[in-house]
Amino acid sequence: MKEEHIHLCHIFEDLSSNANPANVTATDREKDFNAIFPLFKDVHVMLFAGLGLMLSFLKFYGFGGIAINFLIANFAIQWSMIVQGFFYHFKHGQILLGLNNLLEAEFAAVTALISAGAVLGRTSPVQLILLSAMEIPLFVVNDWLVNEYFHIIDVGGTVAIHIFSCYFGLGVSQTLYQPSLRRRHIKEETTSNSDLLSLLGTIFLWIFWPSFNSVLAKTSEDQHRAIVNTFLALSSGTITTFAMSSLIDKRGRISLVHLQNATLAGGVAVGISANIINPGGAFSIGCLASMACTLGFQYLSPFLAKKIKLQDQCGIHNLHGLPGIIGTVGSIVVIMLGPFDSYGLSLHGTLYSNDLKGQQPVLEILGSRDTWTPQGQALQQAAALGVTFVVSLFGGYITGLMMRLPCFVHPSKDDFFDDQLYFQVTEDTENKWISNDNLQKHLLVPLKHI
Amino acid sequence: MKEEHIHLCHIFEDLSSNANPANVTATDREKDFNAIFPLFKDVHVMLFAGLGLMLSFLKFYGFGGIAINFLIANFAIQWSMIVQGFFYHFKHGQILLGLNNLLEAEFAAVTALISAGAVLGRTSPVQLILLSAMEIPLFVVNDWLVNEYFHIIDVGGTVAIHIFSCYFGLGVSQTLYQPSLRRRHIKEETTSNSDLLSLLGTIFLWIFWPSFNSVLAKTSEDQHRAIVNTFLALSSGTITTFAMSSLIDKRGRISLVHLQNATLAGGVAVGISANIINPGGAFSIGCLASMACTLGFQYLSPFLAKKIKLQDQCGIHNLHGLPGIIGTVGSIVVIMLGPFDSYGLSLHGTLYSNDLKGQQPVLEILGSRDTWTPQGQALQQAAALGVTFVVSLFGGYITGLMMRLPCFVHPSKDDFFDDQLYFQVTEDTENKWISNDNLQKHLLVPLKHI
Amino acid sequence: MKEEHIHLCHIFEDLSSNANPANVTATDREKDFNAIFPLFKDVHVMLFAGLGLMLSFLKFYGFGGIAINFLIANFAIQWSMIVQGFFYHFKHGQILLGLNNLLEAEFAAVTALISAGAVLGRTSPVQLILLSAMEIPLFVVNDWLVNEYFHIIDVGGTVAIHIFSCYFGLGVSQTLYQPSLRRRHIKEETTSNSDLLSLLGTIFLWIFWPSFNSVLAKTSEDQHRAIVNTFLALSSGTITTFAMSSLIDKRGRISLVHLQNATLAGGVAVGISANIINPGGAFSIGCLASMACTLGFQYLSPFLAKKIKLQDQCGIHNLHGLPGIIGTVGSIVVIMLGPFDSYGLSLHGTLYSNDLKGQQPVLEILGSRDTWTPQGQALQQAAALGVTFVVSLFGGYITGLMMRLPCFVHPSKDDFFDDQLYFQVTEDTENKWISNDNLQKHLLVPLKHI
Repeated sequence: MKEEHIHLCHIFEDLSSNANPANVTATDREKDFNAIFPLFKDVHVMLFAGLGLMLSFLKFYGFGGIAINFLIANFAIQWSMIVQGFFYHFKHGQILLGLNNLLEAEFAAVTALISAGAVLGRTSPVQLILLSAMEIPLFVVNDWLVNEYFHIIDVGGTVAIHIFSCYFGLGVSQTLYQPSLRRRHIKEETTSNSDLLSLLGTIFLWIFWPSFNSVLAKTSEDQHRAIVNTFLALSSGTITTFAMSSLIDKRGRISLVHLQNATLAGGVAVGISANIINPGGAFSIGCLASMACTLGFQYLSPFLAKKIKLQDQCGIHNLHGLPGIIGTVGSIVVIMLGPFDSYGLSLHGTLYSNDLKGQQPVLEILGSRDTWTPQGQALQQAAALGVTFVVSLFGGYITGLMMRLPCFVHPSKDDFFDDQLYFQVTEDTENKWISNDNLQKHLLVPLKHI
Repeated sequence: MKEEHIHLCHIFEDLSSNANPANVTATDREKDFNAIFPLFKDVHVMLFAGLGLMLSFLKFYGFGGIAINFLIANFAIQWSMIVQGFFYHFKHGQILLGLNNLLEAEFAAVTALISAGAVLGRTSPVQLILLSAMEIPLFVVNDWLVNEYFHIIDVGGTVAIHIFSCYFGLGVSQTLYQPSLRRRHIKEETTSNSDLLSLLGTIFLWIFWPSFNSVLAKTSEDQHRAIVNTFLALSSGTITTFAMSSLIDKRGRISLVHLQNATLAGGVAVGISANIINPGGAFSIGCLASMACTLGFQYLSPFLAKKIKLQDQCGIHNLHGLPGIIGTVGSIVVIMLGPFDSYGLSLHGTLYSNDLKGQQPVLEILGSRDTWTPQGQALQQAAALGVTFVVSLFGGYITGLMMRLPCFVHPSKDDFFDDQLYFQVTEDTENKWISNDNLQKHLLVPLKHI
Repeated sequence: MKEEHIHLCHIFEDLSSNANPANVTATDREKDFNAIFPLFKDVHVMLFAGLGLMLSFLKFYGFGGIAINFLIANFAIQWSMIVQGFFYHFKHGQILLGLNNLLEAEFAAVTALISAGAVLGRTSPVQLILLSAMEIPLFVVNDWLVNEYFHIIDVGGTVAIHIFSCYFGLGVSQTLYQPSLRRRHIKEETTSNSDLLSLLGTIFLWIFWPSFNSVLAKTSEDQHRAIVNTFLALSSGTITTFAMSSLIDKRGRISLVHLQNATLAGGVAVGISANIINPGGAFSIGCLASMACTLGFQYLSPFLAKKIKLQDQCGIHNLHGLPGIIGTVGSIVVIMLGPFDSYGLSLHGTLYSNDLKGQQPVLEILGSRDTWTPQGQALQQAAALGVTFVVSLFGGYITGLMMRLPCFVHPSKDDFFDDQLYFQVTEDTENKWISNDNLQKHLLVPLKHI
């Protein structure tokens, strides 16, 4: 994103500075503003309500889901504003600030929230703030690499956001390996109510995912396609999830974990090609991604936990890793099949603008690369994926090592998945942990009096 | 809706086809897109979050509400896209696809979701998919009849959507009559938490209902009126519901079933006349509809269950049937009172455009009917209602008969209203069915040891 | 707001009146409509879903929160439409009605809902309707005074809405003092589920608060700033709340009451200066407001309850009173620091339009006051605060006295905080009040048989 922002004002600027927004006309600004504000609100609903609820699936760790997500999201957005501000929007000693930046910052913040999912319930808020503090700058650098150096086609941030945050989180999780969690923790349980609220969170994410994947689209036409394709991928993925989950259960019953996660996998996977693919492709990618995600939860996660001691609490590898890889491979296939997107528009304007019908370019790649080829672009998609993989995994390891430093609060293993360590929750029967034991104790009192 | 869609691409078209959207200008498309996208999201929130939560009112069947609604909605939308695509948008061997179609498809899907409410808890997902597969094509045909043949005035789909889906659902329910449900099923109970979440779902529907009723309005002026009138009808209906529910209870206490349903009745009823009525009319229709809905739940539903063996689980006859009829009668009254709508605009442009002040027509009825009269229009409103009634009831019966075929899964009566048949719910005390019995069993153990 | 509304129609006008909206062009109307409709929906979500959920924090009084809020909001909006209609929009015997009015009416209704928070759980719905009936006209008069007489700078209604409703509610609460509530009422408890839903309500309010604070902004530029600044204040306030709440607890645990309230304090405080302050200022005000709110809940509320017998159930003084005062003082500081807002635009156009660079005025104050000075404006901000304080407190006292009249239903103290008085709630174990006692009774039966 270029400097199209309204010059709102530098945070550190003193009050007497009377900067005047002169080089952008009023109507442009209004148009810009009217297009961005609704998407800004949609992303808000996703981050704070949707993701928050989705993470509240544990019986004794509901606030650990929604409230800590609330805290980390706010910290990460503010920190991103500063990091991205100095990286992209620093001018004449000021950071230019507007809705555009906030939206960018929210996208960056998403990565921290996804990564935190891998270690949910066994890290303190302070550790997660450190995680965000480390991840955001690395995201900004990797995002720049992927977009400005590799010129990746990735309107929905599949590589830059989902792949990055997934492997960063797994790196952290690997470093913070907890032998005691090899068996299911005694508090690691759900109730039908917590599962229902978590599913509601998933549904909020599902509803606004098309907005997320289409925010960065350049033109209204592009945005329209990204929305329709994202919807199709989500919708086909949802039906696939129901079918798959029922098929792999002995009694044909659907797993709530699958519903809460795999219904969104299509949105992750289609992000990278949402504006260049055709509806049939979007539909297929949604099916594949949800299938992989469901199978991942059922077979891959237990396997990885056993073999490489990978503990992935929310299954981010199944929701962000696998679908992200499927999506990237899909984008390479689409690009290799022809130099045009499936609507007849040239994927790269400079080359084909003179002789072919696809005169409107989808990509406005800057620079002197007149020799754009599908093969080249496909290679760059793959390269961006590889680089992101390495950078994020490495960054995650380093961050995990820092989180292990004794100066940060570490919850003891008895306090894992327990709100009572961080929140003043009421000790009602529903929430009390060893409720059955306590019940029996209460009952034994009258018995002894007989 | 005409072919105003962006030519997004045919689902079945191969990737090499380079269709080019040429005959629509960019600004028109953008305008179209910017107007539709927010409404598309609003309808999403209504269908997936609002209706899903609203249906989750049963203690042991929360996922049967929200998750099965999620599945059926997705199936119905995809199926509608195909059916409506071949019916309306098939051109040069391709289905034109855009946000417009998706929105149309969501409107069609609503009918399947409403109808499913009549048999909630006693049908399997497979049976409900069959229901959708049958209902959608019939809806498309009836919708065409009502709009293109009878030229009904019905901006909010009161007849085409609500009346249709209600009597279709009742037809299905009648065929699937369950003698065992004559008395209250032992699992057919709610908790205060499930009732609260259901009310939250109602409130989401309530908030976005004005968007629903105004989506199909032709002009911005029409849309504005439809929004304001829908809001007024909902608001007056809500206060009426509180008052009525309190009045008909001996101890003056408000029924949660009434709150969850009758507060929306005004929105159903006013849909048919939302763009031609005046605020006083909208207010009155809202009062009447909510009154009828409340009384329907209290007196009519038990009566029908007894007399004609009609089992209507969610009371769709009270929420969609009665208010729909009231609304249609109301629209006839409004049309008969004058050839103008209450804002001085001619209800039919062709006739009055020369001599009278109402030069801007509300209806742009195509065809050669130069002899438009209020009496004629009123008759057609009534005819559309009658035809829809017959078509939907008949279709529902046939569909119900098919759903009874032994090849489809039928839950046994012990499994009615029970998530455990379809979902891997956790068997915690809150969710366990005969919790009291189990509790006593647990207690008797220590007792015997004394 | 001037008469920019679409002439939709007078409520009481008979159907034959054919008023024609002639003096507003179609494009203006469309623009107006497209700008207002999304904000109208956002405010809807805040009022009905957000505030409703937020008030549902009590274990036995969930419906007393969300459903009574639903009723009062509807009554208050309708009543405001009539009162404001006669006050502002009465013309040729008709009230002009449009989305603008509805939005105004919703802002007025907010005051009744906030005030009701002070007496939540110990007043009947009838008493709360009386409260609304009294508060709305007084709000309209005070709002006129504050805006048209004192020409206050207050884009988010910090003084006119928050301060007014807070002290009105406290006045009512003081009059309805309940000695029995000096100790915690036995039913005044929360569950982790009710606390979580309440926090979800807070998050919905949080998400859409920027819309609330920017609705009344005159230009797109102003609106943009109000949005960004409100977001910053909320975000900084949220982090402050987590930190403060943890700091003042002995065991470092965060209070859910603080999270549910103090995270919104920044939005209240920054409302008055959201369009003239710079980001650094917004950030600081958010921190201060949330700090004050947290400390208010911890120390001031217990102190006031003891010393001046002030019972403030939802802590509206901490969320609306203290942050409102902080915000007003902040606005005075900003105005005194210079005759320009922090973006170089003149705070008052008439004076500076000729000679200085700040040619675009932020304030379009009508009237003949050519001698505008920062000092004068600062005085008027203070005067508006003072007048609002006196008017609202006095109005609250009178209203409270009327609510004590024996002709209105008063819940007895045993029925405080109990849904069962007003709603047909299911008496399941979760909801039954003395559940432990009943449990023991059940248990004693088998014991006696031994």
